[in-house]
Amino acid sequence: MKEVAVIGFGMTKFGELWNKSIKDIFVEASLGAIDNAGVDHIDSIYVGAMSSGIFVGQEHLGAVMSDYLGMNPVPSTRVESACASGGISFRQAYLDVASGNSEIVLAAGVEKMNDGADVTAALATAADQEYEVYNGVTFPGLYAMIANAHMHEYKTTRKQLAAVAVKNHSNGANNPNAQFRNIITVDQVLNSTLVADPLRLLDCSPVTDGGAAVILCSMDIAKKFTDTPVKVVVSTQASDTISLYERETFTTLKAVSKAAEKAYKQANLKPENVDLAELHDCFTISEIVVSEDLGFFEKGCGGPAVEEGKTSIEGGEIPINTSGGLKSKGHPVGATGIAQIIELYEQLTGQAGKRQVKNAHIGLAQNMGGSGASCTINILEAV
Amino acid sequence: MKEVAVIGFGMTKFGELWNKSIKDIFVEASLGAIDNAGVDHIDSIYVGAMSSGIFVGQEHLGAVMSDYLGMNPVPSTRVESACASGGISFRQAYLDVASGNSEIVLAAGVEKMNDGADVTAALATAADQEYEVYNGVTFPGLYAMIANAHMHEYKTTRKQLAAVAVKNHSNGANNPNAQFRNIITVDQVLNSTLVADPLRLLDCSPVTDGGAAVILCSMDIAKKFTDTPVKVVVSTQASDTISLYERETFTTLKAVSKAAEKAYKQANLKPENVDLAELHDCFTISEIVVSEDLGFFEKGCGGPAVEEGKTSIEGGEIPINTSGGLKSKGHPVGATGIAQIIELYEQLTGQAGKRQVKNAHIGLAQNMGGSGASCTINILEAV
Repeated sequence: MKEVAVIGFGMTKFGELWNKSIKDIFVEASLGAIDNAGVDHIDSIYVGAMSSGIFVGQEHLGAVMSDYLGMNPVPSTRVESACASGGISFRQAYLDVASGNSEIVLAAGVEKMNDGADVTAALATAADQEYEVYNGVTFPGLYAMIANAHMHEYKTTRKQLAAVAVKNHSNGANNPNAQFRNIITVDQVLNSTLVADPLRLLDCSPVTDGGAAVILCSMDIAKKFTDTPVKVVVSTQASDTISLYERETFTTLKAVSKAAEKAYKQANLKPENVDLAELHDCFTISEIVVSEDLGFFEKGCGGPAVEEGKTSIEGGEIPINTSGGLKSKGHPVGATGIAQIIELYEQLTGQAGKRQVKNAHIGLAQNMGGSGASCTINILEAV
Repeated sequence: MKEVAVIGFGMTKFGELWNKSIKDIFVEASLGAIDNAGVDHIDSIYVGAMSSGIFVGQEHLGAVMSDYLGMNPVPSTRVESACASGGISFRQAYLDVASGNSEIVLAAGVEKMNDGADVTAALATAADQEYEVYNGVTFPGLYAMIANAHMHEYKTTRKQLAAVAVKNHSNGANNPNAQFRNIITVDQVLNSTLVADPLRLLDCSPVTDGGAAVILCSMDIAKKFTDTPVKVVVSTQASDTISLYERETFTTLKAVSKAAEKAYKQANLKPENVDLAELHDCFTISEIVVSEDLGFFEKGCGGPAVEEGKTSIEGGEIPINTSGGLKSKGHPVGATGIAQIIELYEQLTGQAGKRQVKNAHIGLAQNMGGSGASCTINILEAV
């Protein structure tokens, strides 16, 4: 397989984009990426989107996007894996370049969630419709069960959950594309509206419109376009049971640990070699669980680690969600996985401004769907 | 890129499968394929499905399917390109094997359309929501416009359209998995209910539940599993405008001709080298237009060709839709592209029974989404 590089990116501001359609959002992000990379053509397009059929009545997004980008007849494919759709769009683009089938590929993600659909019901289509949703559970409830189990098993505290949100808002305040740039306190999280015990409003990522896009190409031509290509070291993906009730434990997400195991092995890396990571913090508890499943901390030590600043930009061992994460930057579900890649790209090329992690060489992005039934891990390296 | 082979297949009966869920359908088709190929593991799964979120309230099909197949943590990805979802699932699987990333891949397609959703509205999400659907047009109307333009420009007759349906029912009568196995006459087509002038009920493919799956592997291990692997000669894809009104002409589907041009060039083949073809006859007119755009007949000669028996199994120059096509076999939209590959596989390995085309060495499958905004072409060869 060929070596693959990321050579440019574009994204919209994340938030409630009332005056932009899903097409406007995609085109803005994609033209930004094409312009940023300076490429003169694209061989193939991948679009990650979770539920555009339900959100805005539009499926067939590959063709729609190629058309509105003025790029026909370029092959354009939509991939969907719930909230991991963006990460999987990136992975398919990576495989397309690695195979030698395409030289230059656009990997994008998009979601328009604020146009009137019942968002909680739409998102619940990522859970098992027959065994979970039919019985009344939606995602805040599923992650609340994970949180309760983790608090029971490992004495993780309510304050540690809050510390995740506080850190991520603090990072997001320095991200001009973030939906929420306000600093919040532990007390504010603890006193926000209860959503699904123990999770409160400020433990939950928001409902967001947004798009994100990156350009990948084979490493042997990357230097034609930029002095600072970023190498895709490895791209893995794993699956777990769609329903929580089928799992041996609620406190380990097996798709995450399996994808990580494969990624570290293929890349010949250890968790301690990773300089920063973008993790899927759809709820505060998920960042804690995932930081453990990736091997950054021992099982049960993810909560204390956040509280002790081990995941902060300043002085942290492994800065996590320097972009603000899903919590502060926002979570347009299909775009999230690509936005994670963009944060790594900015960090590894020294463009992250006030969020810059010093001596960042290797970054890891972890993106998952549902309650962790699908997971992608992409590791990038400055060259 | 590595050489890739198809080594086995499985499919459900197509029809109104009231007693089977989308999971049951997928599992039946996939286990059939795994059993038929005799493989002991799968490295990666692709699932083509158009609109399972709207049809049955279930997105995240990759994870659902890996789970219900008992195959976690195997990476499993859903791809969507409206009615071309199956063809694109096959193409992504092909690229995965060709890249060297996976050795053995399951490419499946599934759709459960009879569970109560408004099917016409769900299918219309494959057209441009803002410019076409909002103004009241749905797919029978779009293809009726194509038919009227073709009849006007090339003197294609109403009877020639009917001849497509008659031929395809005649072929499907010999396909045990077909939804409709009844022989029909030109008069029956001409006297069936008017749907969108000039298209009548018997010009339209039906609403269908069904699943189909094939196993792909690298050619260098294919002989371990079967004496009759079928080689994937080429797999191409192209895009066109999502809306009809944007096109220079209604009588040529550019995504089809562009994907074909690329396929013939890469494979160093000409249309006359193809021994049989499965074309996307969602409406009778589309088989005629596509048979011309693929170069089997001059522009305007597709209608007379069907009437003269040039596309029939017995004595035809190029037998088309020997399976019965979408018209008679049925059209579970996400599964259709894979079912086309299965027909080619059965024909190229001499397993097609009463539908068998003599001396079939090279087969072409053409699968498209919407009114031709996306198209895949896969050419297979007996080895």
